[in-house]
Amino acid sequence: MSNEPVFAKVALIGIGLIGASMAHAARRAGAAGRIAGYSPSAEERALASRIGFADSLHDDLASCVQDADLVVLAAPVGAFAGIARTIAPALKAGTILSDVGSVKSAVLRDVSPHVPEGVHFVPAHPIAGTEQSGPGAGFAELFDNRWCILTPPDGADAAAVEKLKTFWQRLGSQVETMDAHHHDLVLAITSHVPHLIAYNIVGTADDLSAVTKSEVIKYSAGGFRDFTRIAASDPTMWRDVFLNNREAVLEVLGRFSEDLSALQRAIRWGDGDALFNLFTRTRAIRRGIIDAGQDMAAPNFGRNTK
Amino acid sequence: MSNEPVFAKVALIGIGLIGASMAHAARRAGAAGRIAGYSPSAEERALASRIGFADSLHDDLASCVQDADLVVLAAPVGAFAGIARTIAPALKAGTILSDVGSVKSAVLRDVSPHVPEGVHFVPAHPIAGTEQSGPGAGFAELFDNRWCILTPPDGADAAAVEKLKTFWQRLGSQVETMDAHHHDLVLAITSHVPHLIAYNIVGTADDLSAVTKSEVIKYSAGGFRDFTRIAASDPTMWRDVFLNNREAVLEVLGRFSEDLSALQRAIRWGDGDALFNLFTRTRAIRRGIIDAGQDMAAPNFGRNTK
Repeated sequence: MSNEPVFAKVALIGIGLIGASMAHAARRAGAAGRIAGYSPSAEERALASRIGFADSLHDDLASCVQDADLVVLAAPVGAFAGIARTIAPALKAGTILSDVGSVKSAVLRDVSPHVPEGVHFVPAHPIAGTEQSGPGAGFAELFDNRWCILTPPDGADAAAVEKLKTFWQRLGSQVETMDAHHHDLVLAITSHVPHLIAYNIVGTADDLSAVTKSEVIKYSAGGFRDFTRIAASDPTMWRDVFLNNREAVLEVLGRFSEDLSALQRAIRWGDGDALFNLFTRTRAIRRGIIDAGQDMAAPNFGRNTK
Repeated sequence: MSNEPVFAKVALIGIGLIGASMAHAARRAGAAGRIAGYSPSAEERALASRIGFADSLHDDLASCVQDADLVVLAAPVGAFAGIARTIAPALKAGTILSDVGSVKSAVLRDVSPHVPEGVHFVPAHPIAGTEQSGPGAGFAELFDNRWCILTPPDGADAAAVEKLKTFWQRLGSQVETMDAHHHDLVLAITSHVPHLIAYNIVGTADDLSAVTKSEVIKYSAGGFRDFTRIAASDPTMWRDVFLNNREAVLEVLGRFSEDLSALQRAIRWGDGDALFNLFTRTRAIRRGIIDAGQDMAAPNFGRNTK
C-alpha cells in the first residue's frame, strides 16, 4: 500500500474514542497530511494536546474544517444536523464530508440538506469501539481487521467513495458498502439491541432489593460482568443511537421479546428439549465469529489465566 | 497456608471444565493426597489420562468414591439424584459429600434423601467458568480470586463446613456461606438470566431472514460477539440449570422484561432523558466490579490491541 497521504488535511469534528483513534491510526499509516481536531470542551482539547495526536485543535468549527479535504463528523449523531449547518459555508469544493455515526438513515436525513454543491457526502460507520470514551481512550489499533461500512447515497461520486475506502483501509479496516436502511437493520441486531439488553439487565440487577449491590458485584463472574462492560459505554452516544434508529431497534426488539417469551414458557413447562436445541444451535455462531477473525478463541476472552 | 493435603482422597464425579480445573488446582496447592475421577465416557477418560490430572480414572461410580474423604458431584445437576442414589452405599462414614452445581435448592432436594447417616453433605458452587467444556478445558487458575458459595443445610456439621472451606481456599477461591434459596436468587441475576438472554439474542439473530448469517458474523464486533461467548456454554449443563432454578429465573426474567418494555416505550416515544439516566447509572456497577477485582479494567477485555 502507498505511503502517500490520502488526504492533505483531515478535520475531525469530535476527538473522543473514535476521532482520537482515527488520528492515531492515520498517523501510523501516514494517511493524512495534517490532522485538525475540534472539541467544544477546553478540557478535551488540553488532553488531546498533551497526547499530541492532532496538528491543530479548535474550539471553532469553521476554522477546523477550513481547507480540509476530508471532514469527519465524530460526535454523537444527535448533534450532526447543527454541526452540518454550521460548517457548510466553510467547506471547500471537492471536499469529502463523512461521519462515523452508528446509524445511517437518520444521518442521511439530518446532514444531506446542508451539504453544499460540490461537496461529496459519503457516510461511514467503523464497526469498532470499546466501552471507554474521550480523547485518552483512542489508540491506533482500534480499526485493525474490523469492518467499516460506507453508505453512499444514490448518485454519490464514485471517486470520492473510492478515496474514502482507501483511507479506511489505510487505517486498518476492511471496507464494505451497503444502503443505509439495510445498515441500520444489521446494526440493530449486531450492536444496538445487544447494548440495550446489556443496559437493561444491569439496571434490573441494580433495582433488585432482595439481592444487594455488593452481591451482584461479588458474584458477577458467573456471566453478568460481561454485560456490565457493554453497559459502561458512553451514555450520550447511545441515547442518540436509540433515538435515531427507532424503527429497526423496535423491530429487532420485538422479535427478541417474542423469542424470550417462548424460552420463558419452555422453562415454566419444563421443556428441556427446546432449551437444549437452542443452546446447541447458538454454539455454531460463536465458532463462525472466531473463524472470521472477529473475536479471540481463548476462553473467557483470555481473562482467566491472569 | 499449610501444604498438607486437606483430604487424603478426593473423588470427582465428573471431569469436565470444573472437575478437571479442581484437579489441576488441588495438585498445584497439594490440597488432595489422591484424586480419583469418574466419567461414563471412554473418550473423556482417555483424554484425562493423557493430561494426567487424576491419579485414577473410573467408569464405575462405586470404585471412584471408595475410601474418598471428599466426594464432589461435578456433573450436570439433572444427574445428581441418580448419582447420589448409586454412590450412597459406597460412601464411608465421615466423608464429606459436596457438589459444584449452579443451583442449590434443587440439589438439596435431589441429593439429601440419599445421604447416608454419618456422611456430611455440604453443597458448594464455585462462581467461575469459561464457555468451554470437557477435560481439556480445565486449568489450575480458574478459581483464583473467584468466590465459592457454600450452602450447608440446617444442622450441617461445622467441622465439615470448615474443612470444605479450607479446601476451596487452597484452590484459590474466596469462600462465602449463604442459604440455598438466597443463592438461587443471587445467581439468577448474576448468571442464569444473563446466560438466557445471551442464548436468546444469538438465536434471534440466527433467525432474522433480512440479515444474513455472514453479516451477523462480520459485524459482530459492535457488541454481539460478547453475547456469543456466553451462548457457547455447555448446553446440557445450562438446560439443567434452567429446569432446576425455575422459580428464581422466572422471577428475575419477569422484572427484566418489565424493565425492557419500559425502555422500548422510551425509544418509541423519544424519551432521551430516560435512556440517558439508565445508561449513566449502569456505569457505576462496572466500576464496582473492576474495583472488586472481579474483572479487568483494560478496555474490551484487552482484545483490541491484539
